[in-house]
Amino acid sequence: MTDFPSRIHIHEEGPREGFQIEPGPITTDDKVRFIEALAQTGLREVQAVSFVNPQRVPGMSDAETVAHRLRSFAGVIYTAVWLNLRGLERALTTPLHVPGRLQISASEPFSISNTGKNTEQTLQEQRLVIAYCLQHAIPIESAIVMTAFGCNLAGAITPATVLLRIEQLMGVLTEHGLKLPCLRLADTVGWAHPRAITEVIGAVRNRWPDLPLSLHLHDTRGTGLANAYAGMAMGVDRFDSSCAGLGGCPFAGHQGAAGNICTEDLVFMCEEMGIETGVDLDALIECAHMAEAIVGHLLPGKLMRGGSLSRFKSHGVNHA
Amino acid sequence: MTDFPSRIHIHEEGPREGFQIEPGPITTDDKVRFIEALAQTGLREVQAVSFVNPQRVPGMSDAETVAHRLRSFAGVIYTAVWLNLRGLERALTTPLHVPGRLQISASEPFSISNTGKNTEQTLQEQRLVIAYCLQHAIPIESAIVMTAFGCNLAGAITPATVLLRIEQLMGVLTEHGLKLPCLRLADTVGWAHPRAITEVIGAVRNRWPDLPLSLHLHDTRGTGLANAYAGMAMGVDRFDSSCAGLGGCPFAGHQGAAGNICTEDLVFMCEEMGIETGVDLDALIECAHMAEAIVGHLLPGKLMRGGSLSRFKSHGVNHA
Repeated sequence: MTDFPSRIHIHEEGPREGFQIEPGPITTDDKVRFIEALAQTGLREVQAVSFVNPQRVPGMSDAETVAHRLRSFAGVIYTAVWLNLRGLERALTTPLHVPGRLQISASEPFSISNTGKNTEQTLQEQRLVIAYCLQHAIPIESAIVMTAFGCNLAGAITPATVLLRIEQLMGVLTEHGLKLPCLRLADTVGWAHPRAITEVIGAVRNRWPDLPLSLHLHDTRGTGLANAYAGMAMGVDRFDSSCAGLGGCPFAGHQGAAGNICTEDLVFMCEEMGIETGVDLDALIECAHMAEAIVGHLLPGKLMRGGSLSRFKSHGVNHA
Repeated sequence: MTDFPSRIHIHEEGPREGFQIEPGPITTDDKVRFIEALAQTGLREVQAVSFVNPQRVPGMSDAETVAHRLRSFAGVIYTAVWLNLRGLERALTTPLHVPGRLQISASEPFSISNTGKNTEQTLQEQRLVIAYCLQHAIPIESAIVMTAFGCNLAGAITPATVLLRIEQLMGVLTEHGLKLPCLRLADTVGWAHPRAITEVIGAVRNRWPDLPLSLHLHDTRGTGLANAYAGMAMGVDRFDSSCAGLGGCPFAGHQGAAGNICTEDLVFMCEEMGIETGVDLDALIECAHMAEAIVGHLLPGKLMRGGSLSRFKSHGVNHA
């Protein structure tokens, strides 16, 4: 039962994932330069910043400045992360693309640890977000289920738990006469493996066959691209990823916080398989090198070292 | 059409792959300590050394010494690489497991560059190997087709070329009344992607449905585990891999020479998927840390930094 897409959509999260975790400091100039370079590779959606407490995440204290300075490029939208209404209100003061997004964690212990709210309190927060969005004519674009494949605090997560969380999110949307436009499933702490991807996606597809799905995969344990491949085999055509694998430095002991799957590695795999990404791979590799120069240490992307195959394919002759 | 195995067999190549490429010097003591540690993890086949020209590969000049010093462990065999009759004769003076192995490259330019022999000369060399093995009662155990998924010199490699090379190898075996017991397909320079794995394995399976297959995958461009997964989905149950991803340092500019897929990452993925490996994952992670200490720099394995899930599963309670 394989259903590979002919094209995937990539949500590039490298700038936000990376610059919030790097010890830095990283200058606003460097952030803008990197984000704008990404916006010129063919990527159509680049997550630029997060509007979070600057006391807790000092690397994002210049979020508004970055957002205002970014130049526009045709066909490219800049997105942002916010975790609560206060963050959403900050984001709305900028020119960024700020849709309504709901969020919940499959694991309740993770939810409490991450946001201080249990599942019921999280659902209540989502009601406030929905009401705010309705009041300000902001469309709800997606909902994310975090720790959908396992959790360091709760242990294994069953597909049934994921389905329950989706039902709960759909419930609060229904209260407001809304439907869920897109579901994002996140392997927040790197537990996923291809069979889990197949099982969870399969369970969701069985229940809601037409619900658009997106995967947010961390490559904590090396299975990231295999997981993405398993997702594509189930027809998933939307992925979050990070240029150069930004977003956690697996070489600095951030256990469980390793970066997203690497964008250029994902693009390479897809393009070689005949799945379009719309991305100029060699331009993206240049961005990965730029990211490494900016953060000042090695990043985990592989293709940026192995190189694309374009130089061999254009010059090589198949006289094997 | 998925046909996952219930168990895979791993041929651990880290010591040979790694110690031949590391700038070193690495002491004989360290080599023996690492190889013996691997032999106590549940791995049943560990490639210890290669018998190659010590002028060209100084890191393997102590191959005989290492081979003679290794202690035996029940159920574990130590293997070696040799590239020609001279190497085979050296290997046979040691206690290592030294079966007959045939080799050919799908890409003729690679063959010429790597061994100085074109395809016809390579086939002639295989005839000499077969004759030698028959004369000394050495069983032919396998044949490897290198650059089976692409080549930096020849460019793309078609499944038809791979089938031709297999037929050529089978031809020289038939001349001596022998059959091919096991075929190893190698992504020597990191061109493979999951669709190529599916296509090449599918073409081989169609022609020779009962031929046991093994995959040798380099993770030059990040697709290694996705490729292994695609192979398993086609029923492949034998893999070469390297502890810690030894075998090329992607952080030192060895372009195209990045290491094999990482053994502990592969074991993690399989065990999580319910595919048995027989390996004690936490013991293997200890070996990966030992490898990093011995070579004195970071190695590309992910799980050795992310950690296994055993501590979460044994203590965690699923109250999600």
